[in-house]
Amino acid sequence: MRTTKPINIAQFGMGPIGIESVRLAAQTGWARVVGAVDIDPAKIGRSLAELTGIESLADARVYGSFDELYSDVQPDVILHTAGSKATQTIEQITPMIQCGVSVASTCEELLFPTLRAPEETAMIDALAQQTGARIVGTGVNPGFVMDVLPVCMTGVSRNVSHIAVQRVVNASTRRQPLQKKIGSTMEPDQFRLLFAQGKAGHAGFRESVALIAHSMGWLLDEMLETCEPMIAQSDIHTEYFQVPSGMTCGLHQRCVGKISGEIKIDLDLKMYLGAPDPHDAIQITGDPPLDVIARGGVAGEQATVAALVNAIPRLLNARSGMRLMTELAVPAWSGGCNAPVLSEPVAAPQ
Amino acid sequence: MRTTKPINIAQFGMGPIGIESVRLAAQTGWARVVGAVDIDPAKIGRSLAELTGIESLADARVYGSFDELYSDVQPDVILHTAGSKATQTIEQITPMIQCGVSVASTCEELLFPTLRAPEETAMIDALAQQTGARIVGTGVNPGFVMDVLPVCMTGVSRNVSHIAVQRVVNASTRRQPLQKKIGSTMEPDQFRLLFAQGKAGHAGFRESVALIAHSMGWLLDEMLETCEPMIAQSDIHTEYFQVPSGMTCGLHQRCVGKISGEIKIDLDLKMYLGAPDPHDAIQITGDPPLDVIARGGVAGEQATVAALVNAIPRLLNARSGMRLMTELAVPAWSGGCNAPVLSEPVAAPQ
Repeated sequence: MRTTKPINIAQFGMGPIGIESVRLAAQTGWARVVGAVDIDPAKIGRSLAELTGIESLADARVYGSFDELYSDVQPDVILHTAGSKATQTIEQITPMIQCGVSVASTCEELLFPTLRAPEETAMIDALAQQTGARIVGTGVNPGFVMDVLPVCMTGVSRNVSHIAVQRVVNASTRRQPLQKKIGSTMEPDQFRLLFAQGKAGHAGFRESVALIAHSMGWLLDEMLETCEPMIAQSDIHTEYFQVPSGMTCGLHQRCVGKISGEIKIDLDLKMYLGAPDPHDAIQITGDPPLDVIARGGVAGEQATVAALVNAIPRLLNARSGMRLMTELAVPAWSGGCNAPVLSEPVAAPQ
Repeated sequence: MRTTKPINIAQFGMGPIGIESVRLAAQTGWARVVGAVDIDPAKIGRSLAELTGIESLADARVYGSFDELYSDVQPDVILHTAGSKATQTIEQITPMIQCGVSVASTCEELLFPTLRAPEETAMIDALAQQTGARIVGTGVNPGFVMDVLPVCMTGVSRNVSHIAVQRVVNASTRRQPLQKKIGSTMEPDQFRLLFAQGKAGHAGFRESVALIAHSMGWLLDEMLETCEPMIAQSDIHTEYFQVPSGMTCGLHQRCVGKISGEIKIDLDLKMYLGAPDPHDAIQITGDPPLDVIARGGVAGEQATVAALVNAIPRLLNARSGMRLMTELAVPAWSGGCNAPVLSEPVAAPQ
């Protein structure tokens, strides 16, 4: 059943994460990176060898649109790393799905796209079922530590009544965009205002809650998300920022899902400069009770790209349509695997 | 796509685990237990209500063989809890697969059946693909904590070079059969002899190593399994056993997989009476490094039955044939889910 034909991959979005995803995909034994798409005129036409430092990508180049890329090379899968919003991402990937090209995306809202884009999701799902394409939103958070991993733990549960996850990230060890995203150096009230406007904070938190609820069969009647700035207690210096005492040095975000006023899902995220004891902790109340901790936590950016590339073999084995991470096979490192099977479209059960 | 038609389940093997599995399946909203099979003449003909204490099972009864059951009721899925050996289990389930009835089994060797029964596995896989049945071996260990869960963690790995798992079980909190299985009260040398004869020790350990290796794409050239008795340092009293000082009170079993003399997979299991600090710990060497611990560990027997029942919805959505746990969708508690889709046979990709 297996084929040694490599999977042709193209990258959509050549920002830092996109470049890393090309690098990682090019290292696997089963993928061939055939091109990329970006809107930046300074990148269009350049070779991926030049942009990534990987010599073997000399023949692959950056196109200004998917249509231009597709008229030159026909990828099996697009790695999409160009946005957080489900509606925008679905718009961007529609031409790909029309061509039957599957998409794995780091778009946070695509983790559970029906939450904010139910109509667009139904449309793209129907289109993908017609053309045989598969779509999935993935990542580390959302996409793994605060949603898929706790769901996975419940695979040995006789009963589950409550799921709580706490993630603490030391943002000092992370790249500049993340340190900026969490509000570093901002006036606390300015950060609060930006969060209220939907312009700051961790994206996809509601989607994590929704994915867990969906997996447990819980119909939530309330979802509450809050976000407060973490305040520097003394001056903080990182490679990228100087945060004076009293200013924002990160965020404390919480999202809970309730049924009849009772909290069923409780996700708590702290990302701030100098956070001690970074970790991911999961408590599942049920039979048996489960108490899991990833000491040191699961590092973000590097692991996000890994989650994206690792999803490809499982995505290509999934049924056509808009898929959830929990519907794919068990996550696994794909670096050592054989060339994944490039299968004919598999219809959903009737 | 979803149907409210319940999934019809029958139980094969009405020992303590089988009875628990019937009880749990009967509690789900999506399953209907239609009967059971056992060879014990004292159980044949009796109602499942009588054997499980669940009144609603008054119409379901125990048959002496699958053929007798099938002539009366036609289950969609069989829960098989009647043995540890892959060859024996495949022989037992062949009539079910011939009828297109899917099978989820706690048979330890079925977790990775090609290891010890390659020909029988190829035969039953081909038969299942013809009839549309699916088969999977599952459980807590093997089947989750020392294999599926570490594989799942590598879903966020850019690279993996080594996987180690330690499981410590306090057998004093477990049922009599487990306390017996680990050698309680035996002379240490007698336990060593029984292990050497394949009559003692934890079953399915090599299968856990093989499943991890398969998932990582590692072709092991050596697998080494050792087992030593744990010796009581003072007299130990449990609900079921009195172990004098100096006698066996449990086991310390280890199984490693190597490539070119280098250990790639290192599984270490201690199950003994009075074990302090029970836990499951996973270390993945790679990028990023991962260090996960389930404090208190994942309880065995209750969770084994849960893993079995929880596998059903995912099994029914998988492709026909002999499947691995890692090929099914992400594990999840099934108690709250809708009736799973009872789908037409889905062909493997060509």
